[in-house]
Amino acid sequence: MPNQIEEFNAYRQKMNDKILSDDNKVIKRIFNLDTNAYKSGHLDVKTKELLGLVASAVLRCDDCIKYHLETAFKQGASKEEVMETLSIATLVGGTIVIPHLRRAYEFWEALEYNHTNR
Amino acid sequence: MPNQIEEFNAYRQKMNDKILSDDNKVIKRIFNLDTNAYKSGHLDVKTKELLGLVASAVLRCDDCIKYHLETAFKQGASKEEVMETLSIATLVGGTIVIPHLRRAYEFWEALEYNHTNR
Amino acid sequence: MPNQIEEFNAYRQKMNDKILSDDNKVIKRIFNLDTNAYKSGHLDVKTKELLGLVASAVLRCDDCIKYHLETAFKQGASKEEVMETLSIATLVGGTIVIPHLRRAYEFWEALEYNHTNR
Amino acid sequence: MPNQIEEFNAYRQKMNDKILSDDNKVIKRIFNLDTNAYKSGHLDVKTKELLGLVASAVLRCDDCIKYHLETAFKQGASKEEVMETLSIATLVGGTIVIPHLRRAYEFWEALEYNHTNR
Amino acid sequence: MPNQIEEFNAYRQKMNDKILSDDNKVIKRIFNLDTNAYKSGHLDVKTKELLGLVASAVLRCDDCIKYHLETAFKQGASKEEVMETLSIATLVGGTIVIPHLRRAYEFWEALEYNHTNR
Amino acid sequence: MPNQIEEFNAYRQKMNDKILSDDNKVIKRIFNLDTNAYKSGHLDVKTKELLGLVASAVLRCDDCIKYHLETAFKQGASKEEVMETLSIATLVGGTIVIPHLRRAYEFWEALEYNHTNR
Repeated sequence: MPNQIEEFNAYRQKMNDKILSDDNKVIKRIFNLDTNAYKSGHLDVKTKELLGLVASAVLRCDDCIKYHLETAFKQGASKEEVMETLSIATLVGGTIVIPHLRRAYEFWEALEYNHTNR
Repeated sequence: MPNQIEEFNAYRQKMNDKILSDDNKVIKRIFNLDTNAYKSGHLDVKTKELLGLVASAVLRCDDCIKYHLETAFKQGASKEEVMETLSIATLVGGTIVIPHLRRAYEFWEALEYNHTNR
Repeated sequence: MPNQIEEFNAYRQKMNDKILSDDNKVIKRIFNLDTNAYKSGHLDVKTKELLGLVASAVLRCDDCIKYHLETAFKQGASKEEVMETLSIATLVGGTIVIPHLRRAYEFWEALEYNHTNR
Repeated sequence: MPNQIEEFNAYRQKMNDKILSDDNKVIKRIFNLDTNAYKSGHLDVKTKELLGLVASAVLRCDDCIKYHLETAFKQGASKEEVMETLSIATLVGGTIVIPHLRRAYEFWEALEYNHTNR
Repeated sequence: MPNQIEEFNAYRQKMNDKILSDDNKVIKRIFNLDTNAYKSGHLDVKTKELLGLVASAVLRCDDCIKYHLETAFKQGASKEEVMETLSIATLVGGTIVIPHLRRAYEFWEALEYNHTNR
Repeated sequence: MPNQIEEFNAYRQKMNDKILSDDNKVIKRIFNLDTNAYKSGHLDVKTKELLGLVASAVLRCDDCIKYHLETAFKQGASKEEVMETLSIATLVGGTIVIPHLRRAYEFWEALEYNHTNR
């Protein structure tokens, strides 16, 4: 089960490195903004990660959901907080969010398993 | 080919069970509503399943499409009715629906194959 | 209240005429397909209009919703059938569909009012 | 300027009352869930309203944005917190969110104006 | 007819100024990127504006469509080029794009009228 | 790596043939339009393919992205032109486009590898 996390991160890192090694300034700046936007400000990092998670979930982007699940996990978000966030996503975004909810749940289990068994 | 159906349903059932075993009331109620909304009312079940199918197709949710294809199949919808439904989805939702149309067609073939060879 | 319907149809017709008077073949053919797709086939016209309605509602296109409400009304769809269709749209598409549901409800009232008082 | 808020709420209330006076159970339950989902749980109400706001913003639903802006305002969210929430929405959802950001900003100003001058 | 353009630009400018006068860095940088991304590079400005137009049209953002119509007009794009661009948008994005096509056509007429009669 | 291209095209061709062998006129005409819309007109083929690419990217349709990447490649589009197109897609469509950008980049590499090593 931990492999799902490692594979996801390895592919993500490999392709990001390639994309950023090109000289496209717009893409580079968007990647840079993506890092800055979730830093602590008037809202704390955990809240921002949950905001990123709900946005990713209603827009039904599995990779984005996984990314924010992992960062939320590292920020100490509880399973209950994550599920409440995803419940709002499912209500606002409708039942088409449910397949993504299933995969999100599986990924969260992998994060917990990985953390306990490392 | 039948494996596609079994794998889809097995994963769906396994994750739904896990999600529902948690105590998130909002998610539980949405799942419950999802069952009730397609019951016979002023519109019959087959028509409702085709409504669910076209909604899933224009929103490009493969898992939702598969689910409604299977229930429409069980309700006796013909291939021609399903294709007319999907043709409206492709017209309203545009050519970005076509990749989902390909996978829907393949899943319908699996449903027919499974039915004939069981 | 009936003015909402007349204004909607007048603007729609005026702009469609202008667009079709141009020589863009792709657009002309899409407009032509849009007429043909809802003709009676393996599914009857009313069912197809409800399919068009649910697709329009989950994609949150007010003008498309109005168009299909009017054609469904002319095909004899009842308020209960239309509301069941829209309830599936709201479940599948989520609470973001609700503002469109409000405007759809108002337009349906205008259609009924217009029909009774003409 | 305060009129924008009153008009929005009056239309919203009038149409909700009409919709709920019908006997469509699915819609009634979705409206009911919409109230319950934002109640205090593992996450507090203000955080949930910001989650609803970011979901509404990336899905580009002006009425939903206004609704959550007003509830967030009542929960004591600061302008800075709301802007950070909307900045994440604009980053995740892209520049197509910007026209909604402009209208959100205007509505927030109306909320502040209304609060100061009542 | 020219008023449509002036009103659109005046509101856009007024709200952008307010938003940018706040100190939200993420939003400021996104606005800044939005200016830079359409500058001449490996692709010329007119092509980039048509890319922005087709993206705005399939995502059904009227204000974004208007903005790119005006910049494309200033870059010397012909009505035929714009209509071909919008025909691809309508094909890829489906018939739900048509209401936006009507409003785009009307705005383009206003741009031409404004240019001829200034 | 070249296998990704061959597998994609083989599945696409196989399912398209099946779908078109049915007698659904609406779907047949949409497929036909999809071929005609990208032919040379007031805009050249390469520009139209880039328009198709940006539309596919903001709508986050991986298969559509791959299709237009391959046709753009055959039309002589450079990697820089494709990346500028995708940078506009990422800006307009937001960071949820990034996972599709990663897969697009990988597919483009496969196209270049395939071309060099055939």
